[in-house]
Amino acid sequence: MSDPSLVPFFQPQGVLIIGVSRDPTKLGYALARNLVQSGYGGAIHFLNPKGETLFGRPIHTRVADVPDPVDLAVVLVPPPAVPDTLHALGQRGIQAAILATGGFRETGPEGAALEQRCVEIARSYGIRLVGPNCVGLINTHLPLDTTFLQPPPPPTGEIAFLSHSGAICAAVIDWVRGQGIGLSHLDSLGNQADLSESDFLQPVAEDPHTRVITLYLEGVQNGAQFVEKARQAARLKPLVALKVGRFEAGRRAAASHTGALAGAEAAFDAAFARAGVLRANTTEEMFQWARALAWCPLPKGRNVAVLTNAGGPGVTAADALEQAGLTLAQLAPHTESALAALLPAAASTHNPVDMLASATPEQYAGCLRLLLDDPGVDMVLFITPPPPPATTGGVVKAVIPIVQTCDKPVVAALMGDRQIQEGVELARAARIPEYRFPEAAASALGALWQRVVLLQRLEEAILTPAALRPEALQEMVQGTPAGEFFPAETAAGLMEAAGLPTLRMPLAHSPAEAAQLAAELGFPVVLKLASPDISHKSDVGGVVLNLNTPEEVEAAYELVFQRARAARPEAHLEGAHLQRMVGAGQEVILGVVRDPQFGPLVMFGSGGVEVEGLKDVAFALAPLTREDAERMIERTWAGRKLAGFRSLPPADREAVIQALLRLAQLAAACPEIAEVEINPLRVLAPGQGAVAVDIRARKA
Amino acid sequence: MSDPSLVPFFQPQGVLIIGVSRDPTKLGYALARNLVQSGYGGAIHFLNPKGETLFGRPIHTRVADVPDPVDLAVVLVPPPAVPDTLHALGQRGIQAAILATGGFRETGPEGAALEQRCVEIARSYGIRLVGPNCVGLINTHLPLDTTFLQPPPPPTGEIAFLSHSGAICAAVIDWVRGQGIGLSHLDSLGNQADLSESDFLQPVAEDPHTRVITLYLEGVQNGAQFVEKARQAARLKPLVALKVGRFEAGRRAAASHTGALAGAEAAFDAAFARAGVLRANTTEEMFQWARALAWCPLPKGRNVAVLTNAGGPGVTAADALEQAGLTLAQLAPHTESALAALLPAAASTHNPVDMLASATPEQYAGCLRLLLDDPGVDMVLFITPPPPPATTGGVVKAVIPIVQTCDKPVVAALMGDRQIQEGVELARAARIPEYRFPEAAASALGALWQRVVLLQRLEEAILTPAALRPEALQEMVQGTPAGEFFPAETAAGLMEAAGLPTLRMPLAHSPAEAAQLAAELGFPVVLKLASPDISHKSDVGGVVLNLNTPEEVEAAYELVFQRARAARPEAHLEGAHLQRMVGAGQEVILGVVRDPQFGPLVMFGSGGVEVEGLKDVAFALAPLTREDAERMIERTWAGRKLAGFRSLPPADREAVIQALLRLAQLAAACPEIAEVEINPLRVLAPGQGAVAVDIRARKA
Repeated sequence: MSDPSLVPFFQPQGVLIIGVSRDPTKLGYALARNLVQSGYGGAIHFLNPKGETLFGRPIHTRVADVPDPVDLAVVLVPPPAVPDTLHALGQRGIQAAILATGGFRETGPEGAALEQRCVEIARSYGIRLVGPNCVGLINTHLPLDTTFLQPPPPPTGEIAFLSHSGAICAAVIDWVRGQGIGLSHLDSLGNQADLSESDFLQPVAEDPHTRVITLYLEGVQNGAQFVEKARQAARLKPLVALKVGRFEAGRRAAASHTGALAGAEAAFDAAFARAGVLRANTTEEMFQWARALAWCPLPKGRNVAVLTNAGGPGVTAADALEQAGLTLAQLAPHTESALAALLPAAASTHNPVDMLASATPEQYAGCLRLLLDDPGVDMVLFITPPPPPATTGGVVKAVIPIVQTCDKPVVAALMGDRQIQEGVELARAARIPEYRFPEAAASALGALWQRVVLLQRLEEAILTPAALRPEALQEMVQGTPAGEFFPAETAAGLMEAAGLPTLRMPLAHSPAEAAQLAAELGFPVVLKLASPDISHKSDVGGVVLNLNTPEEVEAAYELVFQRARAARPEAHLEGAHLQRMVGAGQEVILGVVRDPQFGPLVMFGSGGVEVEGLKDVAFALAPLTREDAERMIERTWAGRKLAGFRSLPPADREAVIQALLRLAQLAAACPEIAEVEINPLRVLAPGQGAVAVDIRARKA
Repeated sequence: MSDPSLVPFFQPQGVLIIGVSRDPTKLGYALARNLVQSGYGGAIHFLNPKGETLFGRPIHTRVADVPDPVDLAVVLVPPPAVPDTLHALGQRGIQAAILATGGFRETGPEGAALEQRCVEIARSYGIRLVGPNCVGLINTHLPLDTTFLQPPPPPTGEIAFLSHSGAICAAVIDWVRGQGIGLSHLDSLGNQADLSESDFLQPVAEDPHTRVITLYLEGVQNGAQFVEKARQAARLKPLVALKVGRFEAGRRAAASHTGALAGAEAAFDAAFARAGVLRANTTEEMFQWARALAWCPLPKGRNVAVLTNAGGPGVTAADALEQAGLTLAQLAPHTESALAALLPAAASTHNPVDMLASATPEQYAGCLRLLLDDPGVDMVLFITPPPPPATTGGVVKAVIPIVQTCDKPVVAALMGDRQIQEGVELARAARIPEYRFPEAAASALGALWQRVVLLQRLEEAILTPAALRPEALQEMVQGTPAGEFFPAETAAGLMEAAGLPTLRMPLAHSPAEAAQLAAELGFPVVLKLASPDISHKSDVGGVVLNLNTPEEVEAAYELVFQRARAARPEAHLEGAHLQRMVGAGQEVILGVVRDPQFGPLVMFGSGGVEVEGLKDVAFALAPLTREDAERMIERTWAGRKLAGFRSLPPADREAVIQALLRLAQLAAACPEIAEVEINPLRVLAPGQGAVAVDIRARKA
């Protein structure tokens, strides 16, 4: 295990329950009962100052008296007694404790102070804590049950469940049993005073009995750590999260469009995408996805064949597959003709394949085999409405050997309730994910495909800000007070340091300086007379376009001064502004906002003043991968139209990708930048780049 | 019953099954068995050419021999025998038949021809048909069962299920039983050769045992009829529809943005909204919504209180309520203090109210009563994770009397499976909708509120095109070939006939004609020289702005001719174009496209060339209600920004509403118009109206 201090939570040599009770109505009794009944093979110790015995075992009265082996304590004593208990554990050398006791941070400031004290005591002894205010840990394979939940414990299975909510644990255990889903771990993390979900991800992912990790999250304590740990875990096992508390997120007080559009949910979406975590919308969906992820191989592509004995449910499945981001497979001609040979003439051999109500188990099996053999089919969804004449059980029995010997995912919609029980039980025993309706089955296949996509994303290279010189950035940002907007020159300087071209207008005081500034900006340039007394420069011939060499610039400087002196001899002439000439192009918005949990979040989309109304924007966590930038472009109309649309000519898409990557690198490299908004970035014709026309940036 | 020819399907005096069998493996046996076992109180007759007896009743060999009373036949004979059977029924005076037999239109052209022949024979005798290729009808209250489905039949209940799919019926019966949901009717409509879902809506809605109608639709045969019948039925009972086949809809070949954006799904959405039908996304959702609609009173508002004994599920509920379009109720201070008096100090008396895990049944009941008494609470969702120390059953028992005596909806999330069975059964018996997770419970409350909104919509006045003169429209459209675009002048004329201001540019050939045209357009006007030889009119002083009287127009006409003759003596001068002067404003798109099922569909949204990319559009069926137009405006950014946004000044919203209403009236009045697109409609400052700048219209 990567962190040895966590070993006692996963493979304890001996468990001590502090606060056992002989009264069967008390949680201290339930704790002891569950541990004994769990079949845990290590040493079991009880402790209560009153002593006596329980389940034929002695109840110790002092921690110091507990004999070896013992490396994990479960603490269920009143909150004020917890600090002393931790001292006793530390002195006894027990360095892992589950604080089941509630009454800490969740009750208010006093509880929070007590919790903080406990953490400090634990740290002083090197004790790691789970909880307080948690239900405890269950490991069905070890086995180990340190909870006080009402029996029976969850059935053994392949799905780990990590939960911020203790209350939901009992419901989940009961519900998954009814669904034929087993758990490998149930880890209730409570207030996470010490250990959080991030700490548990790696050890659970390394558990050979766990095939999928589900997460019930009420938030995360340390966003960067969560993303890092989840990325590691997701390489080993699929992660599916339900993140609750959307309604609390509300809107941020925002000084920019980017800030206004980037709610906490956009940050969580971006973080889950970066971390390789599938985000479920409901508790039920999380487990239904997890079941398919636990039991099925991953598909090679997104093409699904539907096998049904009735038209209606086949159509429903096709709708749901489309909603899940999948496509109906195009069957090969030889598959269709082979299907036709197996089926009555009125059957439909196009996908969805409708075998008609007369379909026998043998026809289900034969057709399934043909569909799985088709190289254009990546997954199969088969449907059985309770059918005369074949029973659902008969159909499932016939297909099991085929499903179990193929390397493509197969899921079932077994429609009905009591009449299909045999089929349901056979499917569960054979590890074929089964659902009551085609919609849920299609959604589960969608999750398999999402997992494939997320695994690919984990291989993408995150572009780190190596090229940026932190000292140079530091120097630029240091003059501006915290929370204030940077001066325009500083904002432009930051962009340019990151390699983002801007449209600056530096002032030259002489022909030579003008030529030098022009060379720095890049040709061609525009030269504009600078005079506080002449408001319409072009009226006096004060603007010269399209200057291509330093010599032309010097000459133009002389020219506009001559013209201005002739036309307005009384005017004060300051010098001349230089600006790089850029053509017309498409305009987009780029933004950065710093999420308090996850750090800088990059935005791309349709800009202008209407950006908040159109909401044509996409987010990703900085720093970006090149593919992140491409996906942001593909997800927005602003991005798609860079390819050109009707009379709108195409624009330099590659320049937008580079601008996004550089802005993200800057944001990641310079935590002093709280927000950036480039509105617009003008994107020129392909090959001609993009320039930041208007830049606002605020200091953190 | 509004249509007396349907009475035998709903209250038959005697039922004749044609094609009974004595072989228990045959559907003809199952049909007879189900009818006998259903407890049907009228006469039961069997027919098979082979004769003998079945279930102690004679099997007749000829229709002519069947004694009175008999007014409904169920036909299960091979397809080729159906025509003769219909002749025999007609001759015997039986005018209602359920054709359970399959093998007609669904099998191809031959079957379709046979089906058509059957319809013609039936019509010639005045026989009404259900089917063919259907499962039959079940009425659990009469009772009557004319299906061959495997027993048991559905439990008696308040929900009617009308289905285009026969295959799904057995699954639905089995599944709803498991959910504790009963059915009043199950009507399988098969190929709908004669009677369709639209015909069944009114009789089922009038059934006193039916409280909700659910519809499994694969499309509708006659869109206008469906909308009309559904509107009538929806005034009596809630309608919930699942419309499958989204994936088949695809995109239309489209000659306009409106056509490209208006897929069949937009038409179904608009039709369901007009018809007062709730659209469910999945089969399961349809029935879960129906259960709440059947058992709960309707709420007065959208404010929901959540009562829970654990934080996590309360937060989940709050998220789901927001997703369902509902809001968390703000509790009155006296409610919060009364809750505090009932609960421990650590409990949360803010909504979601968290009573903590120690909550007793009495606390559930007491808190529920307080929440229901709060005038700011319109509905309550209560949650029980399987709780120590109280059982779910105990909680449900305690709240039943409160739920049953209040006039606000209360639904339950009873989390778990086996451990909550007592609670589930008590809730079902007491008609309290119960769900396994807070998400589904919140969604059901959302359906109740949707029903309230739809009932309000049914009261809105649809603005019919009384003001339009059909003859005048006919005259305008008649010169254009079908499928072609109307000439610009015709398109503008159609808009103006409907009262939609346009920006026409009529040509005057003399000063007097110019003055007259200007007066028709309305002042101020612009006058522009018309000459094929002068491309830049303003170069020769050929454009005069802001003319306010006929005299000014005449003078301007003379002036531009003088200038042009002086500058370009060789040029041919045709006359002068007149155009009403309009100010700047916001630009939007208005469109009409004729849906093959539902007729004209009106579109509103963000226009320009990017309309298809931005997809900021909303649709409604023509003709519109004023509220329809307002909702289209509110649903789009183009509409919302009419109120002004940052530097963008407000525009004439009322003029947009009038333009939408008039365009919809035109489309409804003139079926020769296939498509209209006004892109843009320029919307001027408030009070100054809106003008159609660019109009394309195509003939049907």
